[in-house]
Amino acid sequence: MRLASLKRGGRDGTLVAVSSDGARVAAVAGYPTLQAALDDWDAAQGALGDAVAAAETGEAVSLEDFAAPLPRAWQWLDGSAFPNHGALMQLALGHAPIETDLPLMYQGMSHRFIGPADDVQLPSEADGIDFEGEFAVVTGDVPMGCPAAEALGHVRLLMLVNDWSLRAIAPVEMKTGFGWIQAKPACSAAPFAVTPDELGEAWRDGRVCLPLTVEVDGRWFGHPNGSAMGYGFHELIAHAARTRALPAGTIIGSGTVSNADYDEVGSTCISERRAIEMIASGKAETPFLSFGTRVSMRGGAGASPFGRTDQRVVRG
Amino acid sequence: MRLASLKRGGRDGTLVAVSSDGARVAAVAGYPTLQAALDDWDAAQGALGDAVAAAETGEAVSLEDFAAPLPRAWQWLDGSAFPNHGALMQLALGHAPIETDLPLMYQGMSHRFIGPADDVQLPSEADGIDFEGEFAVVTGDVPMGCPAAEALGHVRLLMLVNDWSLRAIAPVEMKTGFGWIQAKPACSAAPFAVTPDELGEAWRDGRVCLPLTVEVDGRWFGHPNGSAMGYGFHELIAHAARTRALPAGTIIGSGTVSNADYDEVGSTCISERRAIEMIASGKAETPFLSFGTRVSMRGGAGASPFGRTDQRVVRG
Repeated sequence: MRLASLKRGGRDGTLVAVSSDGARVAAVAGYPTLQAALDDWDAAQGALGDAVAAAETGEAVSLEDFAAPLPRAWQWLDGSAFPNHGALMQLALGHAPIETDLPLMYQGMSHRFIGPADDVQLPSEADGIDFEGEFAVVTGDVPMGCPAAEALGHVRLLMLVNDWSLRAIAPVEMKTGFGWIQAKPACSAAPFAVTPDELGEAWRDGRVCLPLTVEVDGRWFGHPNGSAMGYGFHELIAHAARTRALPAGTIIGSGTVSNADYDEVGSTCISERRAIEMIASGKAETPFLSFGTRVSMRGGAGASPFGRTDQRVVRG
Repeated sequence: MRLASLKRGGRDGTLVAVSSDGARVAAVAGYPTLQAALDDWDAAQGALGDAVAAAETGEAVSLEDFAAPLPRAWQWLDGSAFPNHGALMQLALGHAPIETDLPLMYQGMSHRFIGPADDVQLPSEADGIDFEGEFAVVTGDVPMGCPAAEALGHVRLLMLVNDWSLRAIAPVEMKTGFGWIQAKPACSAAPFAVTPDELGEAWRDGRVCLPLTVEVDGRWFGHPNGSAMGYGFHELIAHAARTRALPAGTIIGSGTVSNADYDEVGSTCISERRAIEMIASGKAETPFLSFGTRVSMRGGAGASPFGRTDQRVVRG
């Protein structure tokens, strides 16, 4: 089952089911928004199934019609679960090794996720504009203290997120220990949130075992695979729920998808490529983004189950 | 104008205006929730004014009937704007001095604020259960890049928040640079959110210039004054809005209210008192909270404009 939100309606958009070719949609009777369906997930299954069937001959839509699956969410917790990313970012941002026995995770702004074809408005190129390609899960209600062994039963949907990041600010904020505010503006999301069964064997061990492909101005930038998470999403959910219950619609991110064979598969953020350049030649050469640049992301080897983002960075 | 949310209705409660003695309430025509009024603030002024008048002879209610003013909010950004608190916490948590020229702020969980008389459920006394007394502002829509000089015009309401904190976890998470997840569970809030004019001269320089009084099991713990913020709320708002727009209903906290003459005015968190004990005698003696302990907070020297919290910490 693939679900999405059209820009129609209020700030939360209008929930639709998506056809198998991703080009047609149908509304869901009784559930105007994805949050409403997540709040009442079991009862909503009949209406969602009917909408999936209707979508095959439903209304034709284009990428511009889609908002993010959850245009705003009650909670966005972003992990950093790829060890290779951590090692390269330590070099890129110039901080000391992070000492912890627990998954890395920060609380990010959740009141806005940008639609897949919408312009990304940011204040200044001097902030070091970068993207981060991530997979993410959307949970149902998770009780406080949920163990990792039970956590995957609370995963409702899978997503692809672009976690826009401002690299000139990131180390300044990180040094305080308080996490990021200014360095982490709103994320973007690919249009389709999919139930785990849609991925078949590619959803295993709490990981989305698919490549995440990034293009910048139409040129390949990287396609590392989500299988290389050091912690699975079940462990990220358990970490998040240690001292709080998670509300339905909580989005938990994998962190930047990153593989050790980066010479072959590339990266899903510029900072990593700059770190790799520093290792190779002593000098970072790839610049951060300029206004007007387009960034596109998709998941999977063939047609992306999540659809794609295709966005321009502009002065806000 | 004092506004509040009763526990009736859905997850966002039911908006009411509050009588001048704090004991009676009246509903607001056309605005079922506080978030709805904040989303449409100018247009709502007539209905809010009518409700304030009606509240004087309205329904009698008790503290147990109130939810937090915003039982869930789209964004909670918590500052740490009292220099005295920062200095004592450095000693209490044992971290290096924080080097920054900017206000300190982290993004906290916003999907739940606990009502003023509700039990606070936490998993373990071993986590070092502590409270933090804070003043906070609720903003309207703030555009990205809003300068500090224009920020106070976006302040809609003032609140009193108890930012529950788990001190055994705080330094572990802080060391990663990612901020806090497990160390910062849901906050509580006093019942009344007040328009700035309610405070008269006590709202000045972007600061709530009132004492915040804490009692633990009925015994005085501290009453430092909110005037000692090193940055005012206008500067905190501008900091938060540097790379993002803030949605109406954003709550921004002052950080733990703390004064340099702590020998006289005490503290609004246990960690500070423990640091003070370490300075005086080399040994922290005040324990963190046990299950069953009651914590109460109020603002002001006489009747608290925010009402009060009066809560028990229990095993969740």
